[in-house]
This record gives sequence, C-alpha cells and structure tokens, in this order.
Amino acid sequence: MKLLEVAVIPGDGIGKEVVPAALEVLNAAADVHGGISFRFDSFPWSCDYYEQHGKMMPEDGLQTLQNFEAVFLGAVGDPARVPDHVSLWGLLIKIRREFQQVINIRPAKYFRGLSSPLLRPNDFDLLVVRENSEGEYSEIGGRLHKGDDEIAIQNAVFTRKGTERAMRYAFDLARKRRGHLTSATKSNGIVYSMPFWDEVFKDVHKDYPDVQTTSTHIDALAAFFVTKPQVFDVVVASNLFGDILTDIGAAIMGGIGIAPAANINLNGKYPSMFEPVHGSAPDIYGLGIANPIGQIWTAKMMLDHFGYLELGQHLLDVVESVTYDGIKTKDIGGSATTREVTSEIIRRLQK
Amino acid sequence: MKLLEVAVIPGDGIGKEVVPAALEVLNAAADVHGGISFRFDSFPWSCDYYEQHGKMMPEDGLQTLQNFEAVFLGAVGDPARVPDHVSLWGLLIKIRREFQQVINIRPAKYFRGLSSPLLRPNDFDLLVVRENSEGEYSEIGGRLHKGDDEIAIQNAVFTRKGTERAMRYAFDLARKRRGHLTSATKSNGIVYSMPFWDEVFKDVHKDYPDVQTTSTHIDALAAFFVTKPQVFDVVVASNLFGDILTDIGAAIMGGIGIAPAANINLNGKYPSMFEPVHGSAPDIYGLGIANPIGQIWTAKMMLDHFGYLELGQHLLDVVESVTYDGIKTKDIGGSATTREVTSEIIRRLQK
Ligand SMILES: CC(C)[C@H](C(=O)O)[C@@H](O)C(=O)O
Ligand SMILES: CC(C)[C@H](C(=O)O)[C@@H](O)C(=O)O
Repeated sequence: MKLLEVAVIPGDGIGKEVVPAALEVLNAAADVHGGISFRFDSFPWSCDYYEQHGKMMPEDGLQTLQNFEAVFLGAVGDPARVPDHVSLWGLLIKIRREFQQVINIRPAKYFRGLSSPLLRPNDFDLLVVRENSEGEYSEIGGRLHKGDDEIAIQNAVFTRKGTERAMRYAFDLARKRRGHLTSATKSNGIVYSMPFWDEVFKDVHKDYPDVQTTSTHIDALAAFFVTKPQVFDVVVASNLFGDILTDIGAAIMGGIGIAPAANINLNGKYPSMFEPVHGSAPDIYGLGIANPIGQIWTAKMMLDHFGYLELGQHLLDVVESVTYDGIKTKDIGGSATTREVTSEIIRRLQK
Repeated sequence: MKLLEVAVIPGDGIGKEVVPAALEVLNAAADVHGGISFRFDSFPWSCDYYEQHGKMMPEDGLQTLQNFEAVFLGAVGDPARVPDHVSLWGLLIKIRREFQQVINIRPAKYFRGLSSPLLRPNDFDLLVVRENSEGEYSEIGGRLHKGDDEIAIQNAVFTRKGTERAMRYAFDLARKRRGHLTSATKSNGIVYSMPFWDEVFKDVHKDYPDVQTTSTHIDALAAFFVTKPQVFDVVVASNLFGDILTDIGAAIMGGIGIAPAANINLNGKYPSMFEPVHGSAPDIYGLGIANPIGQIWTAKMMLDHFGYLELGQHLLDVVESVTYDGIKTKDIGGSATTREVTSEIIRRLQK
C-alpha cells in the first residue's frame, strides 16, 4: 500500500466547500485503486487567517509544506477583506515561486454535458503549458515622480533557462499527445522579449524534429481559441499569455468553475501544487452550491502527477458522465448542490 | 463643398484590393451627402516598395503625409518577404508613433448576417479604447549574455499622461454612449504598472461621477468577451491588452475580415490614421475574393472622425443589410467577390 501525503489548503470562500468534496472523491478513488491511500493534513491559511495573524501563513509555513508530496489548494483571495496583492502574493504566488513551480499546466477540452458558449464547440482537447516563474510577472520595476509626471515601469524578464524549460516541457507533452505545439508570441509588437522567445523556441525545436510547430501572435491566438479551438494540441505561453489563454480555454469549455491547474516543480526539491482556475467566489460561499468539478478535476491532475494515469482518466470519465446526465450545479445550468454532485461522482466511481 | 484630402496607403496583399473598393464607396457616400468631396493621393509604401528601395517609405514620407487630413491604410506586412518587425515598425507603427496617434479605437458589435462563433451572440455593442503609444510596446529593453545565460528584458512603460489621456478619452465616449466603462487590469499579477493603472483610473473617474465603472483582470475579461459580451459598453485597455481584446472582439462578431480601427491623434498636429484590423492575407491576394467590409467600416470610422456621423451610420446600416442578404465573401460564409459586395453596397447607398 502506497501512502500519499498531501498538504491541503482550502483557502477562502468556496475553496472551503469544494476542497472537502474533492478529498472525499480522492479517498474513494484510492479505494477503487486498492494500492494507494492518502493522508491529508489541512492548513487554514487564508484571508481568515490573515485577519487573525496579520499574514497569510505562518513564518515556517513553507518549511511545513516542504515535507509533503503535493499541495492541494482551494482558492485564495477575498478582496473585500484583504487586498489581492497581499493575499495572492502572500500565499498562492509565494508558494509557486518559493517551491520553484516553474510550469503551470491547464487543459481545456470539449466536455460532454456542459453548454459551451460556442455554437460549434467541436471536439477540442488542448493543453496550455504556461511559464510560471518569470516573464511579465517579475517583481522588478517601480515608480518615479509624483502627480502628473508619474511613471510606472514594469520589467518583463525572460531567461534562456526559464523559457527553454517551459518549452521543453511542452515539447515533451506534445510528443506524448498529438505531436503539435503552438507557441504564443507577440514579436511583431514587443520587440525585445518576444523575438527572444521565438529564437529559443526555434532552438529547442531542433531537439524535437518529430513535433510540428506553429508560432502565433497572442492576439490572433486568443481569437483562434474562440473560432477554432480544435486545431490546438499543446500551446506554450509566457506567464501572462498563458494566464489569458487558459481563462479563454475555461470559458469555451463552458465554465470557469470546472477548469483545473497544476503548478509543477521540476527539480524534485519541492512539492508541486494543484489548484483550480476559479477563485473563491465569496458571493456564493456557504450556500452549498459551489461547483466541485474544478477541484475534482484538479485532484485528477494530482493523480496523473503521482503516476496514476488510468485512475485519473477513469475519474474524469465519471465526472463527465455525471455532468452529461445533468447532475450539475447552478453555474453550469443545473440545480444540484455541491453535495449531490460529489455523492453521485463517488457512487459511480465505486461501481 | 468641403474638400477632404486623404493620403491613401494600400500597403500589401489584399490591402491593394480592399482599399480601392473602400475609396469607391467613400466617393459614393460623398455624392449621397452632397456637401463633401474627397481627394485621394495614393502612396505605394509596402513590402514591394521595400524590396525596391530598402525601406518601407521614403525618408520624407512622414512629411508628405503630414499635410493630409487623414491617412487611410490597407494592410502592412508580408513575412515571407520582409520580417514583420521591419515592415510593421517601418510603416504602421512608425506612423502611429511619429504622428502621436495615441488612441486606438475598435468597435465590436453584433452584426446581422454574420455567423458569430458564439451560440448566443445576443446584441452586444462595445468599443475598445486602446492606449496606442506606450505600455508593453515600448522599445525599451535589451538582451544580456549569450547562450545558456542569455536574458531578455522588456520594459513596459506607463506614464501618468499617456494613461490618463486614454482613460479620459474612454470616459468621454462612455458618457456619450451607455455610461459604462470597464478598465482592463492585471494588478493581481503585474505589481507595478497595473496598480498604477488602477490608481489613475480611480483618479480620472472622479471627474466622471456619472459614468459607472468596473475593473476586471484581463484573463477574466478575455473570457467575458466570449461568455457575455453584451455587458460591455466602453472598455479601456493598455496597448497589449487592447490588442488582444480587439481580436477577440473581431472573432465574436464573426470575422477578423470585417473589423475596423482608428488611430487617433489628439493634439491636432498630425493626421489620424484609419486601418482595418485584418492583415494583408498574402495567400488570397489577387483572387478578387478579399472581404472589403473591414476597410469599408474603417472608412465609416473616418467619416465619423470628420464629423459626418449620420452619413457614417447610414453607410454601416447599408453594409449590414448587404451582409444580412447574404451578399458576402467566402471568409464569412458567402460566395460573392470583392467587386460584387462593393457594387451592391454602392447601389444601396445611392438608393
Ligand atoms: C501588427 C501588430 C504590431 C499590431 C499591434 O499589435 O498593434 C496589430 O496586431 C494591431 O492590432 O494593429
Ligand atoms: C490570481 C492571479 C495572480 C493568478 C495569475 O494570474 O497567475 C490567476 O489568474 C491564475 O491564473 O492563477
């Protein structure tokens, strides 16, 4: 019996509802598998925690997390109580950065039973590999002068190492999938960082002659996610471009409430972190109607990460069948509660 | 009789087909109006020109253009022959910058007769005001080290003046429209320039207490353009965010081939420039099937700019009726030629 030790941070708002649901599902999946079991240690780090302690997590929070095999996170943020830059940079982004979770992966696919806003959602199935450690999200920059003369400068920083790492990861995935990789660029408008990005992409491609590639400017690419998502296999993008594309990916699936994400540590020194794309939705917190699918699909990505690919696929198939049969929450057009959706997923998993 | 002197740059590829079409339409519109007439002076600056002269336009090109009331541009670029950064920065972006065309405006609306990729395109009608002179498109940055250690840095530069100018322009437009303005931000991830953007937005809002505002992160906003475009009135965005949003805007209308744009000079020292959103589409150049609507709608924006709002609206209504009746080019699902669409628009204009 393999024991998997996971640090759990439900976080804020509906994170506190969907995380327990997903843990139940993970336990049920482990039972089905027979050879694994989970130990979940839960940490209350959140905006609540901030209001009591003046920080989002304890000083030794990262040390505590470091001993786990993965971090399973719900949602962070509640801007009415704590400014976003405090809550997000104090927890979510802090963990991404300190634990060198340099890659963020987010799938988007045609999901049976969801109503896509697209007229013909076809059969798209794509994966965005987002550089997760640098680029436009660097903390380098500042402001000068006051009043009418004020200037703000933000540096986007692209290193060869960081860029190449994300691209290799994406090429490897493309090789295992349908053999096509799209690079999100904007070298026609952003004249230092993006031509560099393009050059690195060309260089790395030399090691993957079997993978077909396309480079597309982010403006056109965002539009293509709407007009022809089915042409994409793997897409590699900078931190900002990946952020934008994955929200469009969630939108065309038919709901931000179902989209999952993984923040991957590559050097094995720190745990990876799994978190859904959606936020904490304070407006519906406590009503029992939050959509648990984003968190459950995120659990599936954690199973994949641990190497239980078949189990993960089975779980996703079950989730899709439950959705297809109309047992779904309000945000995606149903009337079921978080509890009902979760129970039905567990029931079908065990069958 | 008011004479309007317009510099015309057909540019590359289908620009050379749709610009003449739009000029015919403008002449017909002037006839209908009765009180205006156009003088068009055409300049062959393009990738062809580059191949002959080693530059995209003559040294005194800007001086030549400066005497006109407006510049009417087709499309620039043909990457198989001239690298984009040479063609675009040598012509399109050069004119935007040197003529201080600090604002870029691009409408997107539900367009009768087009098939939107959205299931329920509803009745959206939005306008993106894009800061057009600085931000992420600054030419400031560089590269350091070689090989594995190489780093590229790109500075996004936001000045109070440039930011405020775009926002005031957007607030003024919102006031004349439905009274709502959305600001595209990303202050939760980009921690210097975007919080600055938010602060300026709050400050400027004080002068427009009658306009309702929302600030939305670009990732969510891009998704909302797909899931609920009808909630937007005017959107103000940085250079890059505006670029991305307007391509999504074109996509949800049902085709990049119809989307127009205006590059506005505000200080009256230089002409403004009108250009469609689409590119030069070298692959279909010469077939006579290019969609002229983007260029014709762009002509409508030029009429608006000259103050002929009613005439502009009439022209757009005619274009929409022709599209609705199925007289449209292949890219938007019809089988008509550039010539047929243009002639029908002119015929109905004159009725
Ligand atoms: C060609 C490119 C530099 C340009 C831009 O990004 O400004 C284009 O995408 C546009 O939107 O006009
Ligand atoms: C909250 C925000 C900083 C974050 C990001 O942009 O990385 C979020 O949008 C995401 O995609 O995980």
